[in-house]
Amino acid sequence: MTSNQPRHTIALDAMGGDVAPSEPVKGAVLAAREYGLRVLLVGDADAVHTELAKYDTTGLPLEVVPSEGVIVEGEHPVLAFRQKPSASVAVAAGLVKDGKADAFVTMGSTGAAMAVCVLTWGLFPGLNRPALGGNFIGLAPKTTIVDLGSQVDVKPAQLLNFATLGCSFAQHYLGVKEPRAGLLSVGSEAGKGNKQVQEAYALFEKSSLRFVGNVEAHEIFTDKADVIACDGFVGNVLLKYTEGLGLALEAYLTEALGPDSPVIEGLSGLASAAEQGGGPLFGVNGLVIIGHGRSKAENIAHSIFTASDIAAAGLIDAMRNDLSSALETVSAQVEN
Amino acid sequence: MTSNQPRHTIALDAMGGDVAPSEPVKGAVLAAREYGLRVLLVGDADAVHTELAKYDTTGLPLEVVPSEGVIVEGEHPVLAFRQKPSASVAVAAGLVKDGKADAFVTMGSTGAAMAVCVLTWGLFPGLNRPALGGNFIGLAPKTTIVDLGSQVDVKPAQLLNFATLGCSFAQHYLGVKEPRAGLLSVGSEAGKGNKQVQEAYALFEKSSLRFVGNVEAHEIFTDKADVIACDGFVGNVLLKYTEGLGLALEAYLTEALGPDSPVIEGLSGLASAAEQGGGPLFGVNGLVIIGHGRSKAENIAHSIFTASDIAAAGLIDAMRNDLSSALETVSAQVEN
Repeated sequence: MTSNQPRHTIALDAMGGDVAPSEPVKGAVLAAREYGLRVLLVGDADAVHTELAKYDTTGLPLEVVPSEGVIVEGEHPVLAFRQKPSASVAVAAGLVKDGKADAFVTMGSTGAAMAVCVLTWGLFPGLNRPALGGNFIGLAPKTTIVDLGSQVDVKPAQLLNFATLGCSFAQHYLGVKEPRAGLLSVGSEAGKGNKQVQEAYALFEKSSLRFVGNVEAHEIFTDKADVIACDGFVGNVLLKYTEGLGLALEAYLTEALGPDSPVIEGLSGLASAAEQGGGPLFGVNGLVIIGHGRSKAENIAHSIFTASDIAAAGLIDAMRNDLSSALETVSAQVEN
Repeated sequence: MTSNQPRHTIALDAMGGDVAPSEPVKGAVLAAREYGLRVLLVGDADAVHTELAKYDTTGLPLEVVPSEGVIVEGEHPVLAFRQKPSASVAVAAGLVKDGKADAFVTMGSTGAAMAVCVLTWGLFPGLNRPALGGNFIGLAPKTTIVDLGSQVDVKPAQLLNFATLGCSFAQHYLGVKEPRAGLLSVGSEAGKGNKQVQEAYALFEKSSLRFVGNVEAHEIFTDKADVIACDGFVGNVLLKYTEGLGLALEAYLTEALGPDSPVIEGLSGLASAAEQGGGPLFGVNGLVIIGHGRSKAENIAHSIFTASDIAAAGLIDAMRNDLSSALETVSAQVEN
């Protein structure tokens, strides 16, 4: 980090994740130490201080912001947010809204984070729900897939929104100059796919996207498109399949090569990038990185760094503008 | 092969596949030589004889059955079948219908094979279309997934049919005594998933299946269910994703370990079983194995062996009976 780069402040949901608050607190310490980032640890103050006391935090820009309660997986997110307005994830989103943090990071319930962000920050004009996007497979490191599980029943226009948000992400964050957008389908020709994809194809052709047509799933690995749109059911199935496959491969290779082979570590990252740090929520007026509940401290530190990196790129404003322009293009065509 | 086992006759579409007729002919020679199977090579007689002349086929139970034309990928299957009733795949299906072959194998167009089998043999009572099922990932070798691409827009009742056919396959062919059926979804609870899956869940609960609930995609690798039902869009995406991932992994490991590492060969089979031989079509009154267009002679020989193996298991009759019983159970409940 150079002195020219502003030091970002990232709020961390210290109560979110399978091993909270210990892993998040350790992750915050690592992020402050390695990346020089200011981290606001949001959680039960006693529990967080107890964890913090395990590390030498002298001089590190860490602060504890107290919260009450946690929204866990399985709760109805909107109801839980109303019942627990001081839950860690809600307080973290509030810090961003109030300008006290540039972004927040959570390894807690995805549903809770989505509901809280929508209700606290609001959606981009034209959207009904946010989308989850990003890269989850190290073997295709620059490919952005949207949606990864936010919207499981979608209309063709929503697929177009996913692609638009994904292209904005690819351009402004990943540095892809003219992102190529594709539609995940089961054949390369225009007529192939389910009804949803067939109808979306016509919409994509009329859009301002650089549309490369249908992308078959094996083409995720052949760089046919930078951004691939699919409904959240399919995206989430692919994400979790990749995760399961990565673990199964790791077990197989550990048996075949011994536990210390460098191939194993490299491969588990390649097969499942999802656990490396999580991805941003697309379509809300604020920046949140939602990571895997199983994330270790190193992954959490990396997510905090990613949050700072995305904030520096001004991604949220760029996305809102790109979506707005795209929606104008489509509606102009519908009128003509 | 023992003398107790009847020698099956398998028809082979010698014109189907990316490198036809050379790879199919070589595959037939291998199958006859290694497994003692009688193979009817269906194709352009001159071309097939030219290929056959490259091998010592003395004493091998190989016969050439002439056909005219090929139905290729991209043609409208039903129209093509009407225009080319003597195409290789059509003649092969006719041999099965006439009792001259126990099954047929093709590496040609999946759509063509499906159309030809439906029109020549007919569907099981209660079905609108056939389904593609089987195992495609060596890391989960006993897991049957249905549908892999035949029906991309499905109703909940069709998912139930997929699971029923898959359980029949698992029981009668894979030897799983009481197959556990699951629904592929994005969460384990009953309410999780898209509308299609949510409605199917209720139907599965009422069925005679041994239903284990929703299966998340990472649980494909943890033996939660023996049979997993999903629509053909999702199934085909997973199949092709696995294929692409297998190739990408192979390239990565070849770089990391050198091309001669035994790990690579083992792994490429584990990551993509689909190319090993292909799977049967479920729901038609006859047995066909549809393999990958890229299949090599060894894979084709293995498919021919699989066809014989499935024929010996009496799978088609068992499946028809199982589906019929299942449909009676469901309709009895609807009436009550």
